[in-house]
Amino acid sequence: MTETALPLTASQLVLRAKQRELEAVRQLAQRTELVDAIGRLIHGLQRERGATSVWLASGGQRFAEVRTQAMAEADQAEQVLRQQLAGQLAPEQAAGAPLLTLMAWVLMGLEQLPALRAQVARQQLDAAASVAAYSRLIAGPVELIFHIADAARLPAASRLLVALLHLVQANEAAGQERALGAVLFASGRCAQAQQQRVLHLIDAQERSLQVFADFAEPALRSDWEARQLTPEAARLERLRRTLAMARPEAPLDTRHSDDWFEVSSQRIDALWQLQLDLMARLRAECESQSRQAEQDLQDSEGLLQGLRRHPPQHAGAVARFFEADPAAQPVPGPDAVAPAADNAALMALLQEQAARLARMEAELDNARRTLHERKVIERAKGVLMSRLGMTEEAAFRALQKTSMDQNRRLLDVAEATLSLPDFAFGPTPGVPHV
Amino acid sequence: MTETALPLTASQLVLRAKQRELEAVRQLAQRTELVDAIGRLIHGLQRERGATSVWLASGGQRFAEVRTQAMAEADQAEQVLRQQLAGQLAPEQAAGAPLLTLMAWVLMGLEQLPALRAQVARQQLDAAASVAAYSRLIAGPVELIFHIADAARLPAASRLLVALLHLVQANEAAGQERALGAVLFASGRCAQAQQQRVLHLIDAQERSLQVFADFAEPALRSDWEARQLTPEAARLERLRRTLAMARPEAPLDTRHSDDWFEVSSQRIDALWQLQLDLMARLRAECESQSRQAEQDLQDSEGLLQGLRRHPPQHAGAVARFFEADPAAQPVPGPDAVAPAADNAALMALLQEQAARLARMEAELDNARRTLHERKVIERAKGVLMSRLGMTEEAAFRALQKTSMDQNRRLLDVAEATLSLPDFAFGPTPGVPHV
Repeated sequence: MTETALPLTASQLVLRAKQRELEAVRQLAQRTELVDAIGRLIHGLQRERGATSVWLASGGQRFAEVRTQAMAEADQAEQVLRQQLAGQLAPEQAAGAPLLTLMAWVLMGLEQLPALRAQVARQQLDAAASVAAYSRLIAGPVELIFHIADAARLPAASRLLVALLHLVQANEAAGQERALGAVLFASGRCAQAQQQRVLHLIDAQERSLQVFADFAEPALRSDWEARQLTPEAARLERLRRTLAMARPEAPLDTRHSDDWFEVSSQRIDALWQLQLDLMARLRAECESQSRQAEQDLQDSEGLLQGLRRHPPQHAGAVARFFEADPAAQPVPGPDAVAPAADNAALMALLQEQAARLARMEAELDNARRTLHERKVIERAKGVLMSRLGMTEEAAFRALQKTSMDQNRRLLDVAEATLSLPDFAFGPTPGVPHV
Repeated sequence: MTETALPLTASQLVLRAKQRELEAVRQLAQRTELVDAIGRLIHGLQRERGATSVWLASGGQRFAEVRTQAMAEADQAEQVLRQQLAGQLAPEQAAGAPLLTLMAWVLMGLEQLPALRAQVARQQLDAAASVAAYSRLIAGPVELIFHIADAARLPAASRLLVALLHLVQANEAAGQERALGAVLFASGRCAQAQQQRVLHLIDAQERSLQVFADFAEPALRSDWEARQLTPEAARLERLRRTLAMARPEAPLDTRHSDDWFEVSSQRIDALWQLQLDLMARLRAECESQSRQAEQDLQDSEGLLQGLRRHPPQHAGAVARFFEADPAAQPVPGPDAVAPAADNAALMALLQEQAARLARMEAELDNARRTLHERKVIERAKGVLMSRLGMTEEAAFRALQKTSMDQNRRLLDVAEATLSLPDFAFGPTPGVPHV
């Protein structure tokens, strides 16, 4: 069952813990590559979605070449992602059932892509339906990044992953905004449902970018602030205002269509560049953690071998262990055990290790709380959508309004929604149950 | 890197997820055996602590035989525990660095036990110091149970582990209460510090048993209620009142000493019986989950093999995937992907799996919140102990009093304490830093 000969010693366990730390860092480094591949696939599909919506809205006249190129890029990203996903099956990756299930969903979605493209090619979908289909395809990979961030246990990398997830979400909202806005301007009419959705997407970007700013490092934050000070950003804001102020079903100037696509593409490119910078930081963080964990393991091995060569004197050793004042032990648990004189070096190593792991655990709290909050809010939105037949943005607005009206945190409102019994929602509309 | 031949398919991932679920159940079953061994070691050390304190308080006159027997039992429990710990080194157990570090602490503590016993044998410790030393030795294994409960991811078993942890904590507080009360009665004088500690321990038992009752099943709860309706329980309450009402440093009737030991031992035995019942429930739960996961894996394998023998028709298949109304999808993420006609069976399997995992995750919330609360409160106590040199009970009372005075939850007060900067606590007393 184990390669370790009995009897088991404390120093064996300390070394094994150090090995496990190194393995965990390497596993996260591998997951980071998976995140990179997911990010590139999402980016490719977003480009394909944007080009496809213009192509469909123009009756197959415009962006045919851009679309072909975007499809090729998405296909290439898919191949890389498939390799990364296959790598996650390795036992040392320790991918759990939820991650594997989500990976299966993503593959399942990708297996539907040829059928979607065929429908588009035959122009059997309108532009808005195509945007919706691509957006649902993209939701799976985004969720996968969420799950990877949620499973990460290294504070600095976890913070960067939380920042990345929210940047990807902002980018996805920006991508949907570009595609929907393009459809609206190209159609020459401000359809109300799509106008509302665009406003929701602008709002969602702001919220996601706020979380990004909370978790990214200052250099990346100022990077993003600098990228927003462009003439194109100002032009985008003017066009956004045009969309926001238009009365429902009022005519829109179709000449804005190209301009909209150009300036919203530049916003997306800026977000994408930021994402690449963030990925580079994440990689560097994993590499630095990995080197440190290797060094730490080596040092500990050396120290413990030294101990074995010069065994400490047992005779006459005072068990200081039991003498220290319990009240002087700051943290219960491991720290309740004080150094014994006969192997103080091992004890010091263990104490340092326990204190470091406890510190890491405490540092993780903030990232985990943010992810937990997102999870609870998504779940509450899901309940409102399934029980009351609401759209996603209506569900979010209902939670937000309750939060503001009752002066309660959004998280508390979401938790309260989840704890309501089914009958509180009245008779179910004709929605299939999962 | 992986035994799976490319290209990777969604159905491979679904099966792998099912396998991982089965592995996770088996891993938890193995951890449950570890918890059992830890529980038995704690029980043995508690008996040894009780007998030792009477033996020391009587100047080596009484309980010599009981003590010898208790030591033999503790030694036996230690051997079983060492085997269980060695089993945790197996790769399939996937014990992480924090668990391994904690295991090392526990072993380290056990390696000090012979030195403690030698000090006791030479009567170099007084009874109170011996109780303190044994109590610190026991704190490590209790923390190990906490960690195992915290790492568990199966809702029903997690709830039972949370109940078990709090039962063990109640039992440990009861054990310390017995030992300290025995010292007080045997000394014939009500030392104030120890009197305060006994009252704190009684309070701690109530709090732990409340959490036990919240998480245990109704049958176990009524089991415990029935066990408390004994004449011995009433005698214990009378003696507790005697201790509580005594003025500090007032004389105590030494004739109560035996009676105290007898009735508090009966309380501990009742708690121990309850713990055995709870362990049996936990084992049964793991076995039932394991059988279910095996069946589930078999069924899925059969279903997917059937699919391969009768490949679904691709031609003419409508990609329903993209047609369903997004608003009709109740939960974002996996559920944003709707069934495709060409492999609806796999899609249904995947949907069922995703919904089940999401439900499990939601059901885990309550157990995890309770464990998180304990962790934050322990950490805040540790900060007060190390920064202000408080004892454990003084630290807890300070948190509790702030909570009541300010009408805030204990968790909020603990979190606020942790977020205070170091200088808020003033100059550090002479306490070693970790």
